Amino acid sequence: MLKGLEQMLKKDFDIEFKNHEILEAAFTHVSYLNEKPNLKNRGYYERIEFLGDAVMQLCVSEYIFKKFPKMPEGKLTRLRAAMVCEDSFSKFATECHFNEYIRLGKGEEKGNARQRTSLLCDIFEAFIGALYYDQGKDAVVKFISKVIFPKLDEGWFDHLMDNKTELQEFLQQNGECKIVYGEVSVTGPDNQRTYTMNVSINGKVMGEGTGRTKKLAEQMAAYKALKKLNK
Amino acid sequence: MLKGLEQMLKKDFDIEFKNHEILEAAFTHVSYLNEKPNLKNRGYYERIEFLGDAVMQLCVSEYIFKKFPKMPEGKLTRLRAAMVCEDSFSKFATECHFNEYIRLGKGEEKGNARQRTSLLCDIFEAFIGALYYDQGKDAVVKFISKVIFPKLDEGWFDHLMDNKTELQEFLQQNGECKIVYGEVSVTGPDNQRTYTMNVSINGKVMGEGTGRTKKLAEQMAAYKALKKLNK
Repeated sequence: MLKGLEQMLKKDFDIEFKNHEILEAAFTHVSYLNEKPNLKNRGYYERIEFLGDAVMQLCVSEYIFKKFPKMPEGKLTRLRAAMVCEDSFSKFATECHFNEYIRLGKGEEKGNARQRTSLLCDIFEAFIGALYYDQGKDAVVKFISKVIFPKLDEGWFDHLMDNKTELQEFLQQNGECKIVYGEVSVTGPDNQRTYTMNVSINGKVMGEGTGRTKKLAEQMAAYKALKKLNK
Repeated sequence: MLKGLEQMLKKDFDIEFKNHEILEAAFTHVSYLNEKPNLKNRGYYERIEFLGDAVMQLCVSEYIFKKFPKMPEGKLTRLRAAMVCEDSFSKFATECHFNEYIRLGKGEEKGNARQRTSLLCDIFEAFIGALYYDQGKDAVVKFISKVIFPKLDEGWFDHLMDNKTELQEFLQQNGECKIVYGEVSVTGPDNQRTYTMNVSINGKVMGEGTGRTKKLAEQMAAYKALKKLNK
């Protein structure tokens, strides 16, 4: 597995690890080691993930702090939370084909752990931790400049931002006002519903959004209203 | 204020800022700017605090990750939470005399904001953010190696660790057992109570602790039990 992973990292990201053990550990679930009592490298991803989480927090914070010099702290915090979260990281892990290289025990494999969002997120963080440990922050920034930062300009994180809170905070700066979310339509079969919701401000519809849950549709409606208000 | 602050930083910590504006902003509350509409430097601490928080997360994570190579991820996370928290940071801020240099509006000053734990914590994080922005991570590590890391060996964070959770998790690895916390004594006048609590494991007292609240006394009792169990 390690050889294939190293070839992929070299080919896709021009990354070569000096410390092969830590890279291997970052892609190893403890259930795999439990089945192989004689393996020499006893490392698994949990500790490295702890480090990687903090590395991501800083790299993303620094990037958006500099990219948006006028953005207030509350919005920076919401944007960071949208970028550094299980949902985003698990998608990056799949996009980078990390899921193909995870070493799992048989039980976990049968339980479909390889597709589990939380595991994919952990592995992404563990990879970041291993890269930081092996090569330092600049190497991490170079990697996420390819994998994550371009998505910011593509609006990739907008749907994960807490637009409802932002809309409310913005409107309340200018005194009291009434914000109401209403259902426009629900379509599709039971297991594949699509919701459309709108948001009214003092009785006037200001945005409409669609999503797989009511909450996501409301977030999208709030996002549209913020755009309309030039926020 | 800036001159006094810079003299103190030079004298106590051998730190000299290149960017004076960001240092000034890190010690400025927005209420101060609201009263001085003509001030040129309109920066205040909130955005820099956002950056500083992430810097601290990484520096502390990296330090304990390397210092305790066998510590499992759950305990690393609890230790980090004890080190990177409002309670700890506000104490460091006071210890470093940062409270004396904060620029506050008159209303905030009257409301005793200068003693408020949350503000002191914010200012500490903002200073870290400013130092990182001005001089990079090595300068931050040098600073916290003086101010924070030595406290780890002095047991300074032990009372902030979630020892009760750790004790429970450790004991439950070995099957079911009964953990009971009991009151030993309450002493002192109404406004200055001291509680002593003990913890029994399967009916046997394993630790006793004292604190200003029942919860703190229980945490200390759990800590003593963990020590007894060589954890």
